[in-house]
Formats: sequence, C-alpha cells, structure tokens
Amino acid sequence: MPHWDSLWKNLHLATMTDGYGEIRDAAIAVSNGKIAWLGAAADLPTDFIADTIHDGAGCWLTPGLIDCHTHLVYAGNRSNEFEARLNGVAYEEIARQGGGIVSTVNATRAATEDDLLQACLPRLKSLLSEGVTTLEIKSGYGLDLETEGRILRVARRIGREFPVRVKTTFLGAHAVPPEYAGRSDDYINLVCDVMLPALHAEGLVDAVDVFCEKIGFTPAQTERVFQAAKSLGLPVKLHAEQLSDQGGAGLTARYHGLSADHLEYLSDDGIAAMAKHGTVAVLLPGAFYFLRETKYPPLAALRAAGVPIALATDCNPGTSPMTSLLLTMNMACTIFRMTPLEALQGITCNAARALGLSAEIGTLEVGRAADFVIWNIDRPADLAYFIGGSPAQIKVVSGRHV
Amino acid sequence: MPHWDSLWKNLHLATMTDGYGEIRDAAIAVSNGKIAWLGAAADLPTDFIADTIHDGAGCWLTPGLIDCHTHLVYAGNRSNEFEARLNGVAYEEIARQGGGIVSTVNATRAATEDDLLQACLPRLKSLLSEGVTTLEIKSGYGLDLETEGRILRVARRIGREFPVRVKTTFLGAHAVPPEYAGRSDDYINLVCDVMLPALHAEGLVDAVDVFCEKIGFTPAQTERVFQAAKSLGLPVKLHAEQLSDQGGAGLTARYHGLSADHLEYLSDDGIAAMAKHGTVAVLLPGAFYFLRETKYPPLAALRAAGVPIALATDCNPGTSPMTSLLLTMNMACTIFRMTPLEALQGITCNAARALGLSAEIGTLEVGRAADFVIWNIDRPADLAYFIGGSPAQIKVVSGRHV
Ligand SMILES: [Zn+2]
Ligand SMILES: [Zn+2]
Repeated sequence: MPHWDSLWKNLHLATMTDGYGEIRDAAIAVSNGKIAWLGAAADLPTDFIADTIHDGAGCWLTPGLIDCHTHLVYAGNRSNEFEARLNGVAYEEIARQGGGIVSTVNATRAATEDDLLQACLPRLKSLLSEGVTTLEIKSGYGLDLETEGRILRVARRIGREFPVRVKTTFLGAHAVPPEYAGRSDDYINLVCDVMLPALHAEGLVDAVDVFCEKIGFTPAQTERVFQAAKSLGLPVKLHAEQLSDQGGAGLTARYHGLSADHLEYLSDDGIAAMAKHGTVAVLLPGAFYFLRETKYPPLAALRAAGVPIALATDCNPGTSPMTSLLLTMNMACTIFRMTPLEALQGITCNAARALGLSAEIGTLEVGRAADFVIWNIDRPADLAYFIGGSPAQIKVVSGRHV
Repeated sequence: MPHWDSLWKNLHLATMTDGYGEIRDAAIAVSNGKIAWLGAAADLPTDFIADTIHDGAGCWLTPGLIDCHTHLVYAGNRSNEFEARLNGVAYEEIARQGGGIVSTVNATRAATEDDLLQACLPRLKSLLSEGVTTLEIKSGYGLDLETEGRILRVARRIGREFPVRVKTTFLGAHAVPPEYAGRSDDYINLVCDVMLPALHAEGLVDAVDVFCEKIGFTPAQTERVFQAAKSLGLPVKLHAEQLSDQGGAGLTARYHGLSADHLEYLSDDGIAAMAKHGTVAVLLPGAFYFLRETKYPPLAALRAAGVPIALATDCNPGTSPMTSLLLTMNMACTIFRMTPLEALQGITCNAARALGLSAEIGTLEVGRAADFVIWNIDRPADLAYFIGGSPAQIKVVSGRHV
C-alpha cells in the first residue's frame, strides 16, 4: 500500500509531457519532495495512506514556472535614463553622463552582498509570487573578479534562503569594463584565466555565457571563453544574434551549448546546427518589446527544424526591466504569434531543458521534483491570455507548500 | 492648533498639481477622509495633534490611481478564442461557432449578480492591489434592460463592498444584440427610450457611452443616444476613432463630453473640438498592443493643442484582457512614446478629469479626498519603467488604510 506525504485532489493537471498533457479530475501525490503518483482521480489505488490531503478546488495544476534567462542581481535602476530618453535626450548624451551599463556596473561594484540582495528582493518576489520555482541568474554587472563573485554568491544565497531553485551563470564577458577600454582581448584573458577558474573553484558557476555581438565580444573571443568553460567541464550558452548575425548560435551548438538566446537575426545555418546538437532557442519577448525591435526571431523555421523553444524575462535594468513570466507568455503570443501551448512549454519543459534540468523539473512525471503551481483558471491558455495580475493560488517546491 | 486623524511622515510627495509636483522630505495630514495639510516636513506647524502618526520609510506617495475606462464586469473569458486564433483558426470561423462579443453577452446574460461579482473578483483585486482607488465600470455585455441593469448593480456593489470609488457608465449601445440583428435603429430606440430612462431612474448611471464605429453605431445613432443622455442631465463619453475616423470625438466635444477614448484615427478637427470644449483624450495602449495596431493616436497634435491625456486599461475580454495600470503606463511610454510624467498624469489628475472628478481626486491638495498610494520606489518614473510586479506598499482611500 503506497504511503504518501501529501495528496492533492480535485484538480486538473497539465503535465506538459505531450502538449498540455491534460488530465481532468485528477490527483497528484508527493513523497520525499518528488512526485510519487499522478493520474485521473478515478485511477487512484483503492488503498493508500496520505499524511495530508489537499483540496484543489477544481483548479488547474502545472509544473512550477522556470525563468531560464535573468540578470536579476544588480544595484541601482535606470528609470532616470528611460525618462531622459523619452524626454528627448540623445543616447550619446546619456552615455556621456555615465549612463548605460556603466552606471549599473558602478552601482553594483559599490554594493555589498546585503545591498545586492536587498536591491533584487522586489524583483525576486514578483517572480516568485507568479509561480516561478526555478530561476537562472547571470553575473555580468561586476566585470571584475570580486564583484562577479559577489553577484554569484548572492544568487546562491537566494537559492538557499528562498523557495526557489537557482542555476548560476557566469557572464563575465558581458561588456568590456571601463578599465579595459580598447583592450577587450586582455579582458577576455582575465575572464578565462583568472575569473572563471577562481569562481568555478568556489563552486559558484553552473554555466558560462558571453554577449556575442558587434557591440559585445567577437565570435573568436566567444570561442576563447567556451574553450575555458569546456576545460573546466562547464556547459555554455550564448547571447546570440540579437542585433546582427554573428554565427554565435551555430558556435554554441558546436560546443553542445545548453541554449542560444535572443536570436532575432538567427540564420538557417544556425538553426540547423541548433537542431543537430539539441541546443534550445531561448526567446526574450520582453527585450524585443522594450527595445521596439522590428526584426522577429525565425519562429516558423525553428518550429520546422524541431528546435525546442523556451521563453524568459531577461530581467535586466537596461533592456528588459521585467519581472513577469506570465506577461512574457502573453508577449510571446501577442508579438511573436506563438501559441499559448508553446508559451507554456517555453517556461516549463523547454526552459528546464535550457538549464540542463529536464530529468528533474519542467514536467509532471513520477520521480520528478514536486515543483508545481495551482492556478485559479478555466483552462491552461488563460495563463497566456490575461495581461497583469496572477491567478497563482498555491506554490509547491520540492513538495513543500511555500 | 490643528487636530488631525492621521499624519504620514518621512516620505516624498508627487502631488501631480504641476508636473510631478515633487515635495521631498514631506508630510501629509488627513482629517475626515480629506487631505488637511501637506508640505515639507520642515514646514509642519510647531503645534499639532495627530491621533496616529505613520512612518513612510522614505517611500514616495502619489494620488491613488484611477482607471477611467474599463469593462470590468462580465462572465466567461475568451482565452479559447485567443488560442484558436493563434492556432490558425479564422476570425469568421470563430464567429460562426458563437465566439466574439456574442459569447460574452450570452455568458453575462446567464450569470446571476453573485456570479458576475465572483467572475470579476480576480480582475478587481489585481487592479486594487496595484493601487487603483477609483474605477470606471461600463455596462455593455447585457444589451437588454435586465442584464445591463445587473451589470451596473454589480458595479455599484463593488463601490460599496470594496475600498474603491466606482463611476458607472451605461454602454447599452456597445453592439447590436442578436435579437436586433439588422435593426440597429430599433435597438437604439430601445436604448434611448426604455433602457436609459429606467436605469437612470434606479440611480445606476453616472455617464453614457456609445461604440461609434463602422462595425458599431453611426454618428447619427450616437447623437440620438447623446440627446437622450442630455435630456436626463447625464454626461457623455465615446469609444471614438479606434478603427476609422467617424468624427465621433468632435461630436462628443460638442456635447461637452467628458472624454473621447481610443482615438487612433482622430482628425485635426476632432482635436480642435476637444481642445475647445475641454474633452479629455483617453488612450488605451493595452488594446493597441493586444490588437497589434499600427496606426498611432496623434500624440504630438494632442500635446500641441493642450488636450489633457488620460490612460486606462480598457479591461475587457475581447481586445484588452488587462488588469494593470502600471503596465498601461509602461506601454504608453514604450509604444506611444509618452513620457513617464505624462503616463502618471494619465492615471491620476487627467483620469480624474475624464470622470468629472477633478475637484475631488487625482491630485494631492488640501480639501481633496485622502486617496493615496505609498510606493517603494526611487523616483516617480519607476512606476512607468518596471514591467510586472507592483511596488505599492500601502493604499489609503478616504483616509482609511485599506
Ligand atoms: Zn540577457
Ligand atoms: Zn472600451
């Protein structure tokens, strides 16, 4: 006779194992933080013990949401620049006044670990309140060993102190810091030879990322970083093809990268390489919206090639000050014309894959982590349809009601 | 010596009386539900009595937010149509299957008053949680006397049972109901001669609105409704120039209307008439976004003519399933290129004007209602900058912490 820690009854499941994987009038049982049983309530074993039985009140239950691309941890904000630009001040003038990424780097370097945690709390709480149970957090606003380490330590602390799984990504190669102006190769040497090994030795790095772009780092520099990651056994991912086609997605695929992200200018060759190596396409509609982009990522070609598509907030102060995965779903549908199903896959099963966590989270299956959200909605498509507000009723992480 | 019910200290004010009307290191006192004193803390009288003193913790305080155009009360939702369209089903096919506004009318007609209140609760709570203290609610999904009355009674009930001021608008002329297909003039007769007088007699109507459009009612039919409203002493407003220029804004202005709303196709003549008669332009960026419009409302010309500009969610199931005024601000800035100041004026002082409530709400001034929100932000522009989440900390309506 099965003995479960808890049983959730009187709800509908979207398991996300095959399309929505809908099971109506269902139940789901949890033991030791993992899913122990799920199915139609009519198929429950006749005899079982459940220490706690919860009533789902006819709601829908989905896997916990996964935000697989964020720059959550930084100090300061850039609403002053947002306002200045809308008041007609030119970009160059804002840069001359110390605006842009440099302002975030300066504020972040000046912040203590506690300051940084405090600064990102509202953003973190906004994501968690909507049902996020797993969160990727990138460094990249320190651009020196000390501050990059501080950002990643705050990310780890979030994983310990809040009910959320955290995957860290070292993005030392986010921008050339002011002190290396005109010496980007020297900075890449620092990233590869000093920063990455030290942060890896401290256990702070789950993956490695680069901003590969005309205004960022070259493909050759990107490959230097990928080599360094590979030598340490760390997976890679890339900010690729956001503003131009640099061939970054293909490069990432050849390094068996987890994901290539943004992808507005992705080529057919890049798509073929991603399909071949199983690299996930992470689309970031919030940045597309905020930057008023007009060049769309090649959705039809990605679908045709069978590349898995994930979605994320890209939460960052410069190009996507966004902390809502539900709104990300709506933007993916409204702007990119993804379907509500694709949008939900993009923040569950496919986002898990983009983090290398497919075996643990992202679907409802026996043996997977008991991370789920119970929603007061009529059907799964509601999650993509509503704009603002959150129908999340109950959040469960590792079987624990949080 | 002044005796106040409460005093809020250690905060910054955005009074919205002249631009942001910023007063740093300020205090605000409340008596009998109204603002009794405000100013720099250094200017507080040396002697006063305050029954309660609150610490604002260095936050910002603004007037309570005002959503001046919503269709909040309806039953059912249309996420199934949203999903069907994104799966490639044609609009005509959806209509043939009973979709579109007819599905909302059918669901609303079938709902009891309690059903309707229950159905709109999540939407209402989303708006209130973000700091909305005044809300306009239109009828228009009943299209018969009984159901239009039921919607407006639910709106009144919301005003009684929740901490929010409600202004009702009778929008019987929202669409031609199925039973009047091909007989729109007969339906307008019903609206003018039966529905409006009866609902007005019951005290359910604060203003009268029409959907004036090629796919709605003609300017001549609109004027019929305006005449009926005028004969009862009721102010008018209009869904105008959303999809084509019908001259509706000018017509509304000539009837000294409160506002003309949408306005993508507004002409110079319309702008001149609105400026002359003080009719507010209510822009609805959520509907613009959701419908993927490409024709922008004439912002520069409205500014040049000095027409006050308000913003609203247009919360409705077909074209703007949106319940966030903060996101409305961001969309106004990101999509329409309004400034954060204009966006905040659009949901405070100018929205008050669009509801005929300028003398009571929308600014922080002595004698105005003590409706305000305390925000955990660095500067007022943060309200327009962030996407998702709400920094609202404390909401006060008529001096009462809610
Ligand atoms: Zn990014
Ligand atoms: Zn409307």
